[in-house]
Amino acid sequence: MKKSALQKARAAYQPKLPIALQGAVKVVEGKPTQSVADQETIQKLFPNTYGLPEIRFEKNSTAGQGKPVNVGVILSGGQAPGGHNVISGLFDGIKKIHRDSRLFGFLMGPGGLVDHKYIELTAPIIDEYRNTGGFDIIGSGRTKLEKVEQFDKGLEILRELGISALVIIGGDDSNTNAAILAEYYKAKNTGIQVIGCPKTIDGDLKNNLIETSFGFDTATKVYSEVIGNIQRDCNSAKKYWHFIKLMGRSASHIALECALQTQPNICLISEEIEEKNMSLSDIVSYIADIVTARAAEGNNFGTVLIPEGLIEFIPEFKRLIAELNELLGANADKVAGMDASALTQFIMSNLSAENVASLKGLPEGVARQLMLDRDPHGNVQVSLIETEKLLSGLVSAKLATSQKFKEVKGKFSALHHFFGYEGRCADPSNFDADYCYSLGFNASALINAGVTGYMSSIRNLVKPAVQWIPGGIPITMMMNIERRNAEDKPVIQKALVRLDGEPFRKFAEQREEWAHNTCYIYPGPIQYFGPTEVCDQPSMTLKYEHRN
Amino acid sequence: MKKSALQKARAAYQPKLPIALQGAVKVVEGKPTQSVADQETIQKLFPNTYGLPEIRFEKNSTAGQGKPVNVGVILSGGQAPGGHNVISGLFDGIKKIHRDSRLFGFLMGPGGLVDHKYIELTAPIIDEYRNTGGFDIIGSGRTKLEKVEQFDKGLEILRELGISALVIIGGDDSNTNAAILAEYYKAKNTGIQVIGCPKTIDGDLKNNLIETSFGFDTATKVYSEVIGNIQRDCNSAKKYWHFIKLMGRSASHIALECALQTQPNICLISEEIEEKNMSLSDIVSYIADIVTARAAEGNNFGTVLIPEGLIEFIPEFKRLIAELNELLGANADKVAGMDASALTQFIMSNLSAENVASLKGLPEGVARQLMLDRDPHGNVQVSLIETEKLLSGLVSAKLATSQKFKEVKGKFSALHHFFGYEGRCADPSNFDADYCYSLGFNASALINAGVTGYMSSIRNLVKPAVQWIPGGIPITMMMNIERRNAEDKPVIQKALVRLDGEPFRKFAEQREEWAHNTCYIYPGPIQYFGPTEVCDQPSMTLKYEHRN
Repeated sequence: MKKSALQKARAAYQPKLPIALQGAVKVVEGKPTQSVADQETIQKLFPNTYGLPEIRFEKNSTAGQGKPVNVGVILSGGQAPGGHNVISGLFDGIKKIHRDSRLFGFLMGPGGLVDHKYIELTAPIIDEYRNTGGFDIIGSGRTKLEKVEQFDKGLEILRELGISALVIIGGDDSNTNAAILAEYYKAKNTGIQVIGCPKTIDGDLKNNLIETSFGFDTATKVYSEVIGNIQRDCNSAKKYWHFIKLMGRSASHIALECALQTQPNICLISEEIEEKNMSLSDIVSYIADIVTARAAEGNNFGTVLIPEGLIEFIPEFKRLIAELNELLGANADKVAGMDASALTQFIMSNLSAENVASLKGLPEGVARQLMLDRDPHGNVQVSLIETEKLLSGLVSAKLATSQKFKEVKGKFSALHHFFGYEGRCADPSNFDADYCYSLGFNASALINAGVTGYMSSIRNLVKPAVQWIPGGIPITMMMNIERRNAEDKPVIQKALVRLDGEPFRKFAEQREEWAHNTCYIYPGPIQYFGPTEVCDQPSMTLKYEHRN
Repeated sequence: MKKSALQKARAAYQPKLPIALQGAVKVVEGKPTQSVADQETIQKLFPNTYGLPEIRFEKNSTAGQGKPVNVGVILSGGQAPGGHNVISGLFDGIKKIHRDSRLFGFLMGPGGLVDHKYIELTAPIIDEYRNTGGFDIIGSGRTKLEKVEQFDKGLEILRELGISALVIIGGDDSNTNAAILAEYYKAKNTGIQVIGCPKTIDGDLKNNLIETSFGFDTATKVYSEVIGNIQRDCNSAKKYWHFIKLMGRSASHIALECALQTQPNICLISEEIEEKNMSLSDIVSYIADIVTARAAEGNNFGTVLIPEGLIEFIPEFKRLIAELNELLGANADKVAGMDASALTQFIMSNLSAENVASLKGLPEGVARQLMLDRDPHGNVQVSLIETEKLLSGLVSAKLATSQKFKEVKGKFSALHHFFGYEGRCADPSNFDADYCYSLGFNASALINAGVTGYMSSIRNLVKPAVQWIPGGIPITMMMNIERRNAEDKPVIQKALVRLDGEPFRKFAEQREEWAHNTCYIYPGPIQYFGPTEVCDQPSMTLKYEHRN
């Protein structure tokens, strides 16, 4: 690998560790835990790993006698900055336990465990990847570990390699599966521990005990960098409205964090739109009104942040999509041979009047996409809808017939952006580099403590890294029962944006001013070597949520 | 303006100046110059400003007696990182000449001069904008200064404000107009000097004496940052081909520079495609062959860089667009009332057989766009064509019928990106911060030297800033005669990518390896505070062009 100058310089960075992990470690057990909901059902599903105590690590005065341990690691799901540091922290941690400890990486995600594809991660390999972005050290994948056959297949290779602990780095689904696997291996008395690590740029894997998932910090800083640059362009040329869609499957944490960092004119928050039962037309009016008010001041430019998951939170869309999926699912055989026009006619004559009206209110291209482009399961492919273009098109159409907009001699010209892949594999910020390294190192302490079904937890993150509090949280504690594919399943509760939370409140109390004045902030690119107030700040979300 | 932490820290940066400009300055005149072509015609058009000598500034042992000077400044055309530093360098330069000197900024581009819209740029204003991106200090605009009435209107306000020198910061067109304005003001004996500064992220305003235009360095570094991040994602997930279009009106300098920085699997260079007379189908085959070869190795992923100007360099498109423009121009009245289907039929039955075939070879959406979407002058809107989607669509269609691709069990799934606005207003890199400040400071030396019709020139840019060579180049020297809108006009020759130049040669000798192996480089974000090998490097293009 030919390295960039930054990579070379950055390789020397030594991530900061909480003081409690720097020397010998003492395990402090808390009280037994309960799941956040559906306690009885979840206890039944996890008889061996339910109700375990929280764990906190503290500095120990005397070091214990460590034994070599073989550990496996898996990167699961979408990339997030810092994954390599979780692995290097884990490596350094198990080497500290005993220099003969070994680390095996399963390739291309959970599938590598099932298919017995792996490499041993030795010091020279680890050193190539310290403080870098990406998951390319072993690759990632989306195979779901859900079935007993997969668990048994995995067990074979774990036994063959003498692996007694498996670390799964992933989002809510992957950690749910880690808990199920932990339960299974425990029930079978395999002696294999399973530890999870909270990863996802989406920021929706968090709760009272997991303050943030890793990668959120870096990804939102990269998006904020380019949003800031676009805003500066916007404020220089003063002639475009930029509609900027931001990745994030469901929750709007990314859009909200970027809004707090850059102060755009408009930021839509899906959770609020659902809560207020806003229609697409309401949203379009909201934007058009701000465009008009700015035009009245001579400002025919602005920025709009749009969370990727928006569509599925708009109640009328939700209903439309649900009915479309149901209608076409129930008539799968009948519609299979239809051409586009026959299918369109079939849909229009069988959909409820309300949803026909919703469809007719959409631009032709979007309506066509909803009706005709379907995934292999026959479902509407919501992620293909270019929400940013849909919205700007509807706003443009609305303004074209607006008397007020004409009176103020407004002009409306839109440009579109979608940011996602630009940030998922960025070099981790100092925060993510430190946090990830600590999460991985901490996972080795959990392994050393002999526990299973725990998630690596580092808290007190708004303080300097030395003051961070390392420990472990039973994964079952974060679970509830949810309906998935017509089945009740135990899953980790996804954290959506809370409208009563500080980050949203801070946004809501300022957005009126941001809309009408031009209050852009230009954060610039992530810095690694400068003053601490530039280089070592956690996300605004984290600060607002935990500053007390 | 609420400032980001980086902006605050960055405000303290003191840009480096060439040693020759640090103290008193001596003017060294070179030989009289000639235009690059069409000497006789250009001499006739510029009787007062043709043939002037090159100028170089050297350190002087004794300081002269400076007099206060009032200067006007204009930002013209698209934004480029560093414009604020040109202005702050100019401000500091004229204040060094005499502390009573004053600087006036005309608002929103050349239109501000004509419409008498301006502000005085005082020290507190200048200090707000040092080392920041954007043109928002006075805004920019695209009004072309071409007509005598505009020149006279401008003269009124220049006289009213006692301005004796005007600095125009712009690209090739704006500097062409600066030369015409300089000639006009000289011919009228107004005593008003006009000085140009070479700006454009496109990198196409350069020649033997202007080594690079400002902004190219920063913009390409921002694009390379996000391309690198995408490549790391690509190499982690190993399942997508990313088609990445990069801004740049005509020349492919941006794409080439980004390719040298990031080593993608494929980079198209428009100038080469034109030179080799490649058809769209040839380009598609070239990409599809590499996709297939990588698939054979199990690598169903990759990156393709596409210069924005590509379409207009593909000979068959050039012919098609030319005939379309001609046909519809000649029949403007006839086609005015036609609906889409009538117009399509009219075009299809009147176009040459060759161009009908070209049209038919295009995906329906693109063909429709070419035929139906036209600008107010009736011309095809080439910039609206999403080349990145056009190419990936054609590649996908070709692979779908490829026996070889089937044999190697290839998969092809594409994602699309377009980067432009993300980089034009980024905070300038140290290089651009220094270069721009020096260009502006140097402009004040040209003003002090009493010359007009010159472009501010800083050379020897691959060396440390203290060794840079400041001076001035008569703008007429860079001109030739070109056909524009059916008229012969004197214009600055645009610098396209030279296929015999070092940057392209370096690229061409490595691209085969980049295509088949995965040689991605991940440059990461621009750094301002770190080691010099990370923070102070000029572009690869500049290094390869001037390293001897």
